[in-house]
Amino acid sequence: MVYSYYMPSKLIIGEGSLKKMHEQNLPFKKALIVMTSGKSLEKNRYLDILINELASSSISYVLFQEVMPNPTHDNVMKGSNIARENNCDCIIGFGGGSAIDCAKAIAIMATNPGEYWDYIKNGSGLGKPLVSKPLPLIAITSTAGTGTESDPRMVVTKNDEKIGYGNDLTYPYLSIVDPTLTYTIPPHLTAYQGFDALFHSLEGYVNKHHNDMSDIFAEKAITLLFKYLPIAVKEPNNVEARHFVSLANTLSGINESTSGCTGEHAIEHALSGVNPQLIHGKGLIIISLAYYKTLIKNEVALDRFSKLVELISPKKPAEPQYFLQLLEKLQEDCGVNNLKLRDEGFSENQFKYIAKQTFYTMKGCMDDDPHDWTIDDVINVLKESF
Amino acid sequence: MVYSYYMPSKLIIGEGSLKKMHEQNLPFKKALIVMTSGKSLEKNRYLDILINELASSSISYVLFQEVMPNPTHDNVMKGSNIARENNCDCIIGFGGGSAIDCAKAIAIMATNPGEYWDYIKNGSGLGKPLVSKPLPLIAITSTAGTGTESDPRMVVTKNDEKIGYGNDLTYPYLSIVDPTLTYTIPPHLTAYQGFDALFHSLEGYVNKHHNDMSDIFAEKAITLLFKYLPIAVKEPNNVEARHFVSLANTLSGINESTSGCTGEHAIEHALSGVNPQLIHGKGLIIISLAYYKTLIKNEVALDRFSKLVELISPKKPAEPQYFLQLLEKLQEDCGVNNLKLRDEGFSENQFKYIAKQTFYTMKGCMDDDPHDWTIDDVINVLKESF
Repeated sequence: MVYSYYMPSKLIIGEGSLKKMHEQNLPFKKALIVMTSGKSLEKNRYLDILINELASSSISYVLFQEVMPNPTHDNVMKGSNIARENNCDCIIGFGGGSAIDCAKAIAIMATNPGEYWDYIKNGSGLGKPLVSKPLPLIAITSTAGTGTESDPRMVVTKNDEKIGYGNDLTYPYLSIVDPTLTYTIPPHLTAYQGFDALFHSLEGYVNKHHNDMSDIFAEKAITLLFKYLPIAVKEPNNVEARHFVSLANTLSGINESTSGCTGEHAIEHALSGVNPQLIHGKGLIIISLAYYKTLIKNEVALDRFSKLVELISPKKPAEPQYFLQLLEKLQEDCGVNNLKLRDEGFSENQFKYIAKQTFYTMKGCMDDDPHDWTIDDVINVLKESF
Repeated sequence: MVYSYYMPSKLIIGEGSLKKMHEQNLPFKKALIVMTSGKSLEKNRYLDILINELASSSISYVLFQEVMPNPTHDNVMKGSNIARENNCDCIIGFGGGSAIDCAKAIAIMATNPGEYWDYIKNGSGLGKPLVSKPLPLIAITSTAGTGTESDPRMVVTKNDEKIGYGNDLTYPYLSIVDPTLTYTIPPHLTAYQGFDALFHSLEGYVNKHHNDMSDIFAEKAITLLFKYLPIAVKEPNNVEARHFVSLANTLSGINESTSGCTGEHAIEHALSGVNPQLIHGKGLIIISLAYYKTLIKNEVALDRFSKLVELISPKKPAEPQYFLQLLEKLQEDCGVNNLKLRDEGFSENQFKYIAKQTFYTMKGCMDDDPHDWTIDDVINVLKESF
């Protein structure tokens, strides 16, 4: 088997790493700082730290604080116009996945012609190749969930199409993973985000294209999350737990770069494409048990599930089925069990459309899934998660 | 603690990966292929495969096949002149560490003025900063020992100074790790090289600057090497063993990039600087037991040695001392136990000079060692290894 590894981003990891950003001797003159309209990074003075670091590095900046929780095509086009007008030579994504993903897309559109959707390969995207190298991107993550700081991908929504995109040119130039920025995240969001990270690794682990390199990151991240996520949820200031959840998130991003997501993410994107109020991590948790049950019931990737049980619970017999219990237990321990689609404003008559959108917008993930999914399989997952 | 991770090389790993090199769509026109004067890569038709791949990629080439087993300053300067004269736009290091390390140095000197030693930071080097980005380097490793395909470092000898150098600009652009190229390596060299890889990971693991990221690579590499190196030594065509020894070597290179070597490598470089006939991996094996005994005797990094015992031999009590038995047992299993300096042409009256050279040429590694070494400590290691 031939496999590849490529993750060229420089990662700076650890408590206080944002305050050391100036040590990187960044070769830039003017940055566009991309953030959501939420005020938590300002309120907690994290934005002040960033601005200080830029001043110490003689980098001026423009603020763009309009990114939606699910970043939109309009966000990307407006941000990239501001970057062009201000002659920015780098883009800083500051916040969670929304801010950083939008910043990645802005970095592309600051140097490429036309519309962002011209380059998107699924849904109604035109699939054109990039003409120019994107601007260098600095990712400063204030959450531990998307892993976008160590993967090339960004998810942007246009109308009800929520589609991922990325290639070798779209990795961050530099990523700063400062777990202290996550201390103020409330418990339920810590759990939603942590499960997103977990599913990046789990999906990468069962993915058809998993390999010895991707497994290294997935196994470490999964072990860390099963151990530390419940602690981080219960003790927001637990330095060790926050550190290892942040690290596990970054490792999950590397795993995603090296292997990739599967049907679970595809189904969730279709769900939150239809209902942008649904928080991505929460959507994943809602469908997760039905999703993994489908794989096990169809007897795919059974060796992987046995290995997972061995990894998470070495004393128990390595039965694939037992993985579902471990996953359910983790959801209980994090206070995010028994979440249902019915409570998120969905109705059953949307399921056929959502199932179709799953294949339309996220075909790549469906192709990489170890199970050969049908529309009915997806509808069944949605029904079981209702 | 704040730590960083940076390993931007693209790795292509697996049986037959050299034959897939053309799939990389390399953007180059003319390569300098750097090899040692040994004929094994030609004899085994591996060079033919490479030349075919270049032809399929429309890349012409010039051959430079004069690299010494310990590449010399003259090799670097001659190779870089040939690259300049032929307007090469990339350098291919093809072979073991000697060829690839020399290729890295040639890539630097193909675009930078003066002499290679102008840029070297230890010994009699002038420590100048590089003026230009080196040419892109493709590393194709035919051995499993140096990890140079996934680290930025190169070791070159000038007179009796054997010094390592490297920075963020000197990582390979692309590295190909095709374990089938190692099938023809005889058992004793398989062992010497495999132990070199092992020591990269072990030194990185006890290094003062080890961190959670470097540990991930070290732990995986060490586990794989303790399991598979004896098999690869005894069964040269064992596909699984060769695969995992090759992977472990590459992981050890990443570990070296992320943490770093310590006194063991520093002492060995001083030894083989004085006696270039000494094979690097063999030199490391010779001093290894005395080196690690010194650390344990001085009660440094004891938690690391306990963790290593736990990792390699989970059923035994995690006593640091027990690590020495495990290391000795691995040397027995690989047929490289009881090797001594006296059999390599050294005499005891050289030890004081060698100990001084250790600090003169490899100060960085000595500084990173968890033990605060003295000249006498080094002399004691040499005496015990005599």
